[in-house]
Amino acid sequence: MKGIGASPGIEKGKVFVIKDWQPMLANNKTENTNAEISRLERALNKSTTELDNIFTKVKREIGDKEAAIFEAHIMIIEDPELIRQVKIKINEEKMSAEYALKTVRDIYLEMFKNMDNAYMRERAADIKDVTDRIIRNLTGMEKKDLLVIEEKAVIAAKDLSPSDTVQMDKEKIIGILTDDGGAASHVAIMARTLEIPAVVGLGNITEQLRTGDEILMDGDEGHVFIKPDKDIIKEYMKKRKMLRTLKTMYADLKGRESRTKDGYKVELSANIGTPEELPAVLRNDGEGIGLFRTEFLYMNRDRLPSEEEQFKVYKETAQKMEGKPVVIRTLDIGGDKALSYMPMPDEMNPFLGYRAIRLCLDRPDFFKSQLRALLRAGAYGNIKIMFPMISCIEELRKAKALLNEIKEDLNQRSQVFNPDMEVGMMIEVPAAAILSDVFAKEVDFFSIGTNDLIQYITAVDRGNKDIAHLYTQFHPALLRLIKQVIDNGHREGIWVGMCGEAAGDPRLIPILIGMGLDEFSMSPGTILKARWILSNLSKKEMEKKVENVLRYASAEEVCEALSFDTGVI
Amino acid sequence: MKGIGASPGIEKGKVFVIKDWQPMLANNKTENTNAEISRLERALNKSTTELDNIFTKVKREIGDKEAAIFEAHIMIIEDPELIRQVKIKINEEKMSAEYALKTVRDIYLEMFKNMDNAYMRERAADIKDVTDRIIRNLTGMEKKDLLVIEEKAVIAAKDLSPSDTVQMDKEKIIGILTDDGGAASHVAIMARTLEIPAVVGLGNITEQLRTGDEILMDGDEGHVFIKPDKDIIKEYMKKRKMLRTLKTMYADLKGRESRTKDGYKVELSANIGTPEELPAVLRNDGEGIGLFRTEFLYMNRDRLPSEEEQFKVYKETAQKMEGKPVVIRTLDIGGDKALSYMPMPDEMNPFLGYRAIRLCLDRPDFFKSQLRALLRAGAYGNIKIMFPMISCIEELRKAKALLNEIKEDLNQRSQVFNPDMEVGMMIEVPAAAILSDVFAKEVDFFSIGTNDLIQYITAVDRGNKDIAHLYTQFHPALLRLIKQVIDNGHREGIWVGMCGEAAGDPRLIPILIGMGLDEFSMSPGTILKARWILSNLSKKEMEKKVENVLRYASAEEVCEALSFDTGVI
Repeated sequence: MKGIGASPGIEKGKVFVIKDWQPMLANNKTENTNAEISRLERALNKSTTELDNIFTKVKREIGDKEAAIFEAHIMIIEDPELIRQVKIKINEEKMSAEYALKTVRDIYLEMFKNMDNAYMRERAADIKDVTDRIIRNLTGMEKKDLLVIEEKAVIAAKDLSPSDTVQMDKEKIIGILTDDGGAASHVAIMARTLEIPAVVGLGNITEQLRTGDEILMDGDEGHVFIKPDKDIIKEYMKKRKMLRTLKTMYADLKGRESRTKDGYKVELSANIGTPEELPAVLRNDGEGIGLFRTEFLYMNRDRLPSEEEQFKVYKETAQKMEGKPVVIRTLDIGGDKALSYMPMPDEMNPFLGYRAIRLCLDRPDFFKSQLRALLRAGAYGNIKIMFPMISCIEELRKAKALLNEIKEDLNQRSQVFNPDMEVGMMIEVPAAAILSDVFAKEVDFFSIGTNDLIQYITAVDRGNKDIAHLYTQFHPALLRLIKQVIDNGHREGIWVGMCGEAAGDPRLIPILIGMGLDEFSMSPGTILKARWILSNLSKKEMEKKVENVLRYASAEEVCEALSFDTGVI
Repeated sequence: MKGIGASPGIEKGKVFVIKDWQPMLANNKTENTNAEISRLERALNKSTTELDNIFTKVKREIGDKEAAIFEAHIMIIEDPELIRQVKIKINEEKMSAEYALKTVRDIYLEMFKNMDNAYMRERAADIKDVTDRIIRNLTGMEKKDLLVIEEKAVIAAKDLSPSDTVQMDKEKIIGILTDDGGAASHVAIMARTLEIPAVVGLGNITEQLRTGDEILMDGDEGHVFIKPDKDIIKEYMKKRKMLRTLKTMYADLKGRESRTKDGYKVELSANIGTPEELPAVLRNDGEGIGLFRTEFLYMNRDRLPSEEEQFKVYKETAQKMEGKPVVIRTLDIGGDKALSYMPMPDEMNPFLGYRAIRLCLDRPDFFKSQLRALLRAGAYGNIKIMFPMISCIEELRKAKALLNEIKEDLNQRSQVFNPDMEVGMMIEVPAAAILSDVFAKEVDFFSIGTNDLIQYITAVDRGNKDIAHLYTQFHPALLRLIKQVIDNGHREGIWVGMCGEAAGDPRLIPILIGMGLDEFSMSPGTILKARWILSNLSKKEMEKKVENVLRYASAEEVCEALSFDTGVI
């Protein structure tokens, strides 16, 4: 069976199937509505206490990001509108507390279900998880399945809620398979964090499997084999062995410089989304942080972060990186990732909408607090500031003017800050790439954001499965633009990096070396592999190759031509 | 007051304010539900008959496009789901027919109201219009206001529904002002068709005006002056006179060639959306049709158009144009313009979605029927075929392969068709512009679609008002791409046209002449003005200008530099 590879790794073993827990509740009318309201209140309190405990435990044992899910659950319980509607059902329709809650919950879920938006679907999963918990606390019904796993097993479930995942005994679970979910679902994120192989979105695997069945799974490719034959097992065990050998080989490159075999040196940095990923950067010997996203500071909370809160995070990150560069991107948020405390307009095309620098320049007060925190933190390490989504020179100039205003202010107040902080911009809007000669005169560096750049040059939403075949990092138009940006940057003497997925793609690294890219920023786990790849390359040869590749007509030709350069992958 | 200029023209006169008609209905319970159902059925029948009559009248007196609105209204009446819900309210909640209808209608409107999507809002307006009509027929309440205008006046209303507009005595109405509506609303389209100046989206003008007030309005700029003073009136009457003089001057150019003063000849063509616009093309002396949109053939109906239906329309258009080029664009439809008979996925970013050629290549059966109709109609005039939204060479090659398949088939069946029909593509996806050297080898012409191209290179949805300032046809990145496309086209010996708004912009025409654009396609009403502008230009001078303009950093600089070239506008 083929699903979505959500967390890498090859595993084989016995499967343990978890049946979906659906409380069957009858609509028994009650006359004692006050008693039902009291039962509801007690169950709500109990659920909140449980979630508080889980939050603390997860924060300590797994990480802040995962813990934030449970904070969100508490917020759902505290949503007065939800509770008001449940109480109306109890008072007016004489429903029992659990049936009233289920009725209201089902209306919410129905509403969310029809939205073709991953974010909203995840919210629906959260609502189901929380209300299941409350119903459990109302009825005493238990979801015991997860506690009875006795030997190591691959677990298969319709879906795993965050509450389920937390309950699980991680030592016993060697793999995860789910019917539902996508690469960005809670269960996928959790599996990657815990380094448990996972395949999600399998459709109806729970119907096809019984507890005890033998399976083989590949979390990279998303393959699952039920009762695999010997040849398949042999093939995959070989693959697993090779992957482990490579991992050792890559590990030997720790502490070495990132150089091609003819001596050309580049910087291999990491993209990270929260400070919790810093240990992975250091473990994988990242030479810096090429993209530090700051959205986590603003999400899953009920008000803007203060300047001090931000300052503390930026400062600690800079200190932990011990003088290595840390490129921090200013807030990149918009219609598709709304903040509860900052209402944003509903948009027909949020990827072409009011977001990132567009929104920040419109709300200088909160933008300035981020910039001030960055300038101040810059005194404690090598922070560089990066503006996202710049599409015209006016935006860059306005952002820089704000920075200068703040510097003056900090000076007057004699606050410590870095007055010479490097200021750069993302190249992710095609107009900025096309005008990169102009922009290069007014920034200290470029970082090419291929993920968005591809979306815009091909007019393809990268999340839209119907046109996924048109979204490709091998599009010759992309390579031409990248070359142009690097050349324009170098002509003005600035460095050019890349922080999109392409920077970590083994097939693209050679050609990017040939084009003269200075910095490659990728997920921490890919850094050592990239170092190994480039240690086997000759920059001279790759330069020659670039000319040919730029003349190709199709992504297919490009991909084919590039697949030979990296040798063993 | 400032609103949206929806239909051009300067007018002054007395205003006539139309109060919004809101039926006040009480929820009087009925026991005789059968009688209510019968009343409902009678009112539905009466409304359908009325709409049939209006449809015929509008089709004859105004046009097919306007008539289609009333066809859509009939479809709403015939929607079984709507009627089913109303009957449930009557039967189960003992409501009167009118109250039941209003209750169900209000739920629909509430649903649509919250959608930030112009298309859906227009559907809401249609539902309100139809249900108001049915309620009128149920209650005998009349909306008489529109019938009592006795002298010529500018009418002001909250909004004007298509039914209102049809009822109005057009001879008496010299201008239209509305609180609601946008440039694409029904009232705006109707006003432009009837050539009545209109300003819409004025907020609360109906509250600020009383019937009999003097006003001055400018339908180009969207200005409205209440009780204007003498100086303002003088200024605007001067402007009106000048506009009329220019109109005469432009009219003198009918029948002349489109040449610069140093003899460089170009083609000035028209963009049209339905065959009803053909008379305007001929009246304005268009030298061809540079963009014939075919969506109208697919919309406002309940099944795909047959090959014969399409063939007939294409053939008649080609014949009416008497050998002049007619560039027909294949179906450009997607998530934001759904067809009732062809369900499309809900998309998070429809402008970056599954649309146009992407959809057509996936459904070869219906695409082939359009291509076959085009090839066959080509035998009766100068039709050229144009593919929209091409983003990679594979798409073009697949579309051309389909064409060849059809040619072979037509040959075998000995059907008449044009085997040598020119095949071109829109340049509207940035990747296609960047790779235009590659594409130029495989098509007969390019037509640059600036409207979408600007969206994608700036990452700005052109309908999003929060970022409207970032969407500009003066972006230096756009001009650089245009130049590159023209140069690449000419290098391969093909002609290059433009069918976006930029082609008709007086400030851009000079620079496009300088770049060597071969064909300019614009709304029919602009053609003669464009001919006048270019008759005053020197191509040589403009060529020199191009080099400077391409070095500018900002749209502001570009716009300023270009505003001087056209002399009188």
